[in-house]
Amino acid sequence: MASRQLSRAEALACPGCMHACHVMLYCDTKTLLFGSLPIRHIILMQMRFDGLLGFPGGFVNPSEESLEAGLTRELSEELGVALPILEEDHVDSRYAPASSSSSSSSSPRLITHFYAKKMEEEQIRELERAATTATDHGQEVLGMVRVPLYTMKGGGGLAPFLSHSFAGNARSQLADTLLHLHLVSPEELREAVACSLKIQASAAEELRASLASAEAKRKLL
Amino acid sequence: MASRQLSRAEALACPGCMHACHVMLYCDTKTLLFGSLPIRHIILMQMRFDGLLGFPGGFVNPSEESLEAGLTRELSEELGVALPILEEDHVDSRYAPASSSSSSSSSPRLITHFYAKKMEEEQIRELERAATTATDHGQEVLGMVRVPLYTMKGGGGLAPFLSHSFAGNARSQLADTLLHLHLVSPEELREAVACSLKIQASAAEELRASLASAEAKRKLL
Repeated sequence: MASRQLSRAEALACPGCMHACHVMLYCDTKTLLFGSLPIRHIILMQMRFDGLLGFPGGFVNPSEESLEAGLTRELSEELGVALPILEEDHVDSRYAPASSSSSSSSSPRLITHFYAKKMEEEQIRELERAATTATDHGQEVLGMVRVPLYTMKGGGGLAPFLSHSFAGNARSQLADTLLHLHLVSPEELREAVACSLKIQASAAEELRASLASAEAKRKLL
Repeated sequence: MASRQLSRAEALACPGCMHACHVMLYCDTKTLLFGSLPIRHIILMQMRFDGLLGFPGGFVNPSEESLEAGLTRELSEELGVALPILEEDHVDSRYAPASSSSSSSSSPRLITHFYAKKMEEEQIRELERAATTATDHGQEVLGMVRVPLYTMKGGGGLAPFLSHSFAGNARSQLADTLLHLHLVSPEELREAVACSLKIQASAAEELRASLASAEAKRKLL
């Protein structure tokens, strides 16, 4: 969906590139939403300091530590737990979209590495609790959120979630990994994306009305 | 910014109307982001079961309990703490936008009541911890998040946050209450809204590209 994929080795060989590693922590669940709709899987994302949604993780300098050691370190800061991520958890490496690095074209290119790690439901719950007292809580991280994969009768669930604003490659990392791990079907995802565009259009309309109202008040002053 | 405001009494007199009560829980903070940028205030919102951002709260039936008693009950379910909300915490009542009730025009109109309650920073932190084990966690609530009010050099903060998708009146309740309580200036808010529209436009572009790619793959099958 986004930029070209790289192998892990190819990515590490890139001269002068910067590297960021993020992980999708998830589990299966038998819990039903409101006693009837299967939730199926719990997937953790977070509200970041910059107001965007993203996955746990951060920058890693491969000349100082391995990608996985760096990601493990970031997780201990953000989630307050020791959670070793291994090379076998690697899913995908690719260049970040140019728009996500707001600096000039002379700045180093950013490669984003993505990992996925399946856990037990009780471990996920423990992570959510621990995250509220982790070092980065209220700093790099403004809160952990679960991703709804279901679709409710009125359209709530995955589609509204996909209509939010995501950091860098996070939305495509989410979508691609949901497909890769068979957590949603291509058809479910396609419908959710189509629906999320409509939700976003109505949010944009609301923002434009709000801006127009603020501009009008300003002219009255 | 949105629909017409009603007095609390006027709202309660509406025959057959439905009522929803939500609250902005907030505190002052001296904490600096990354040691330099003043965070100023912590404001709690949540990722809801339907994938939209909103405030804690829910439906209240005024023939069974007062608006404030109903809101207090909702908070105990969502945040796992007893946090009495009083009539003096009331900020605003208004009709919900028609689009937020997906049902037919013959269904009862929804009035949203909004409250704001200032707390101590340690109480807010305690709420965040308690919410991860509250009754509604993983059901009505997918996670609590803080609202960034600052603007970072690269534009991160309030503007990206406002570009997300919100339930019902939540975005205008947030914006209006930030102004009402002088937590942000009208100029700061206007600039953040203008910037959030650009962020949303680029998110829409990404979603359209993702949809086109999914459609193309589908035709290949």
